[in-house]
Amino acid sequence: MSLILGIDPGSRITGYGLVLVERGQPRHIDNGVIQARADNFVNRIGEIHAGLAEVIAHYKPDQCAIEEVFVNKNVSSAIKLGQARGAAIVAATSVNLPVAEYTATHIKQSVVGTGRATKDQVQQMIKMILGLPEIPLSDAADALAVAVCHSHASNALMRVGANSVRRGRFR
Amino acid sequence: MSLILGIDPGSRITGYGLVLVERGQPRHIDNGVIQARADNFVNRIGEIHAGLAEVIAHYKPDQCAIEEVFVNKNVSSAIKLGQARGAAIVAATSVNLPVAEYTATHIKQSVVGTGRATKDQVQQMIKMILGLPEIPLSDAADALAVAVCHSHASNALMRVGANSVRRGRFR
Repeated sequence: MSLILGIDPGSRITGYGLVLVERGQPRHIDNGVIQARADNFVNRIGEIHAGLAEVIAHYKPDQCAIEEVFVNKNVSSAIKLGQARGAAIVAATSVNLPVAEYTATHIKQSVVGTGRATKDQVQQMIKMILGLPEIPLSDAADALAVAVCHSHASNALMRVGANSVRRGRFR
Repeated sequence: MSLILGIDPGSRITGYGLVLVERGQPRHIDNGVIQARADNFVNRIGEIHAGLAEVIAHYKPDQCAIEEVFVNKNVSSAIKLGQARGAAIVAATSVNLPVAEYTATHIKQSVVGTGRATKDQVQQMIKMILGLPEIPLSDAADALAVAVCHSHASNALMRVGANSVRRGRFR
């Protein structure tokens, strides 16, 4: 049994999702978003970290999973998103929570079955897999998707042996 | 009397510098670099945070100053630098250390007297202002420069009254 925290970081809204995996089956525990509302950027980065630290302290997950960042916009957006992601990562690493990274394509492949799935297809599938009454907020749904992806990857890794974990996608 | 921690974040090498300001005069306390050596990126971001958290716990600075990021390279470098900077910022904000940001131009203007100063001129001036026997490692020298810049800005703000601090560059 393993509790996975999925994170979808953003400089304004950071989604999180908690999935409990028992005998290979993911079960929904919680999801939500951290809204960074401070009037300056440094404090918003602080809010993301503090919000995730609170979630981690409350649920004490065993593992953490986060989407690898891909930004096709400009350098300025990339820097902002990077800082949000850095704050999210250290909320986990500072309490020795292992962090796995997955590309967007890997997540889509894992959740929907094709790396070219749309955002809407991923969200519909997350709703179905976790038996949710409705689709959560977009960023929270994305966080659940990376958690579910990690649950699939963990199952696969367990099948091939624990040693593969450190050589695989698991960081 | 105020102890200022200057930080120059980088995904491989993060510089830090500590400057004690007494009656408007900056005095060198320490400087150094944190080298992130882990074989994966997530753990390197964790090392930057842990290294700075250690410096902060040891010296207990009153204020922190960091250069605003400007990257004219590609989006991928921007994302990496952003994550390092996010980790650095939350090392300060998570212990309620106020963080001020300065542009590179502002730092050069403040330390050398012209916003178009070269990196070498900034380092020579830092050596002189702080009476150092030699120029520190490049990233540590840059960290001392942002700390000295903040000491100048703090002096100016003190002259115009404490209320200006929150409206000014001080984040």
